[in-house]
Amino acid sequence: MSIDAAAAQTRQERFDQGLEVLTRIDGEAGQKVIDSLADISPELGHQVVAWAFGDIYDRPGLAPRDRQLVTLGMLTALGGCEPQLEVHINAALNVGLTTEEITEALLHASVYCGIPRALNATFVAKKVFGERGRLPSEEG
Amino acid sequence: MSIDAAAAQTRQERFDQGLEVLTRIDGEAGQKVIDSLADISPELGHQVVAWAFGDIYDRPGLAPRDRQLVTLGMLTALGGCEPQLEVHINAALNVGLTTEEITEALLHASVYCGIPRALNATFVAKKVFGERGRLPSEEG
Amino acid sequence: MSIDAAAAQTRQERFDQGLEVLTRIDGEAGQKVIDSLADISPELGHQVVAWAFGDIYDRPGLAPRDRQLVTLGMLTALGGCEPQLEVHINAALNVGLTTEEITEALLHASVYCGIPRALNATFVAKKVFGERGRLPSEEG
Amino acid sequence: MSIDAAAAQTRQERFDQGLEVLTRIDGEAGQKVIDSLADISPELGHQVVAWAFGDIYDRPGLAPRDRQLVTLGMLTALGGCEPQLEVHINAALNVGLTTEEITEALLHASVYCGIPRALNATFVAKKVFGERGRLPSEEG
Amino acid sequence: MSIDAAAAQTRQERFDQGLEVLTRIDGEAGQKVIDSLADISPELGHQVVAWAFGDIYDRPGLAPRDRQLVTLGMLTALGGCEPQLEVHINAALNVGLTTEEITEALLHASVYCGIPRALNATFVAKKVFGERGRLPSEEG
Amino acid sequence: MSIDAAAAQTRQERFDQGLEVLTRIDGEAGQKVIDSLADISPELGHQVVAWAFGDIYDRPGLAPRDRQLVTLGMLTALGGCEPQLEVHINAALNVGLTTEEITEALLHASVYCGIPRALNATFVAKKVFGERGRLPSEEG
Repeated sequence: MSIDAAAAQTRQERFDQGLEVLTRIDGEAGQKVIDSLADISPELGHQVVAWAFGDIYDRPGLAPRDRQLVTLGMLTALGGCEPQLEVHINAALNVGLTTEEITEALLHASVYCGIPRALNATFVAKKVFGERGRLPSEEG
Repeated sequence: MSIDAAAAQTRQERFDQGLEVLTRIDGEAGQKVIDSLADISPELGHQVVAWAFGDIYDRPGLAPRDRQLVTLGMLTALGGCEPQLEVHINAALNVGLTTEEITEALLHASVYCGIPRALNATFVAKKVFGERGRLPSEEG
Repeated sequence: MSIDAAAAQTRQERFDQGLEVLTRIDGEAGQKVIDSLADISPELGHQVVAWAFGDIYDRPGLAPRDRQLVTLGMLTALGGCEPQLEVHINAALNVGLTTEEITEALLHASVYCGIPRALNATFVAKKVFGERGRLPSEEG
Repeated sequence: MSIDAAAAQTRQERFDQGLEVLTRIDGEAGQKVIDSLADISPELGHQVVAWAFGDIYDRPGLAPRDRQLVTLGMLTALGGCEPQLEVHINAALNVGLTTEEITEALLHASVYCGIPRALNATFVAKKVFGERGRLPSEEG
Repeated sequence: MSIDAAAAQTRQERFDQGLEVLTRIDGEAGQKVIDSLADISPELGHQVVAWAFGDIYDRPGLAPRDRQLVTLGMLTALGGCEPQLEVHINAALNVGLTTEEITEALLHASVYCGIPRALNATFVAKKVFGERGRLPSEEG
Repeated sequence: MSIDAAAAQTRQERFDQGLEVLTRIDGEAGQKVIDSLADISPELGHQVVAWAFGDIYDRPGLAPRDRQLVTLGMLTALGGCEPQLEVHINAALNVGLTTEEITEALLHASVYCGIPRALNATFVAKKVFGERGRLPSEEG
């Protein structure tokens, strides 16, 4: 990967680039998080977009679906991140992971994080899949 | 995936199946962990092999490299799991993840777990890559 | 403890054995968790029953009430496991721990996990004891 | 700091001293937590007051506002402590931290705990500031 | 349990009471921790003794061996507390838990905290049991 | 605080700005971390400097000493971050926190994170203060 250290970007340009990535991956859910930060910490919203999505997510070294697998692992392990898991299970579907791969990843998590964390994450997946009509019983 | 609920296995057969998976994925490092449990908790060693590797790891719903991505995310997020990270960064290389993908996954981790956890995991990768002659400077 | 390594069990037999233990310890609460997994990750439900309760919980090396003490300590320390704490505070009562022992264990937790984790767990105990008519004021 | 090792205090005196500190820092929110413990674990309530606030909080080595900064950092990092964050973001305002300092501290947390923990804490701040009419848009 | 709210104790008396409990439970290991705090934070040493052991550990509502079971669960779940696990696995033996019960408790932990935390704790037990000549192979 | 959204910066300029902040706060310890990343993940080193120190640390909304208080709280709560605690206890001294304030902050941490995390952090402080000749016995 080559990064042009001499290419100048304004703060706004970095934000715009991140927003394009955020929208592509997270869809409306990402935008809603940023919106909800507007009246309390717009700078945190800016950093989520410009740094997390603009600087990190969009790097070429790891495919978007692979980033979501790592992310699902981390959010499951951290615990107490159900709102973020909801965003990122949606994102995982958006970038091409199947419902079977996601539930299998969360089953796999029980080995490393224990059953409670795996259960909590799996129930978030149940909510997200249900909202998108993609529960296994619905996918046939 | 179909699982034959009527197929009977002895405890030893489940262990043997898991050991084949463990050896394929973790190589010697996994075996060493099991050996070091022999005089303190052979049952924990049995469960790591028969359950984690035999029952879970070998399921077809998620590719081995994808399992390692989830695992790297979890171990980085948990913190204090440097010995397990060492085993699983080796495993990640064994199942086909590149050094670039692994370091990128750990950079990605800084967004969700913060910089300290990402640093600790990256220094384990440095150790493992160095031992295998695969630091970026060595890979050319 | 002797484990017969040559005794063969089908997947269904291991599940049935675990279900007997789960029902004895957790009562209806455990069954509800398994039921709620049926349309999202039946395999996670299977592993909770067959592995956690069949393989581990039923081992003779540690009494059921002692397992619950360890479990209450872990779930309090992990944080964000209030649903599991609810199941296991019920389970603790089912296997003979008194309400005084449980609240004392959660007070003890403040030394190792800090006051916030102890508070969160204690409020789950308040809910469970209240539902079972066993708040200290009700026990006389 | 000098502590008179020979000065005797009753259990009640230590509690009364802590209650004075708790009320000064946390206001009604602290008292409510203690009240809600009365019928489940009055001893945990006693220790929160007599030990945490009486013995520790009131020591002269660190200013109250500085204690709140450390506390906000810890509660954000722990995760799953939103009820305690709510009490302590109120407390932070009570002891003189500004809304800008608090949101900046939570933005700063994203570096060490990752974005999800920072988001969760920031949304608690949004709730507290809103209840007190101190959202940035309201402060002008 | 009745606590005499009017009984006055000096700071030194509370410390002395805690030290008696600490010595009984943790033996030399506990004293070494307190000693090592003398030139950096004698007040933390005081609180460990006077509060954790004097006020909490010595309460009658939960037997010493039961407190150690809860403690082993918490320290295993927290992660990164290997020095404290070493002290408390020693303490667990001191108050009458058997080596089999301790290793079983740590195996049980794999269900709730995942395999890595269970492994880390089990290797601390291996060290402690080895130092005391109580590895299973040595106990016959 | 005003941020000029139209001011363009190159990647190198953002790095240079962060490096100035890093050097001012962390001194040599920060530079050593960046250097040690050079052959494994130079991009993580870049982000630590350009993002964490350039974008976040240098913002005017929270004084450097206040940022260190929050940081000490977070690193203590996370656990397993002793290397980062060492860097940031040095940093805390560099930006004007006294040794008494730091040990008091870590004593305060025992209320929220429990005694084990507070002990681990305090022993890192003992190491740092000792290396700088600032143990209480040396300062007295």
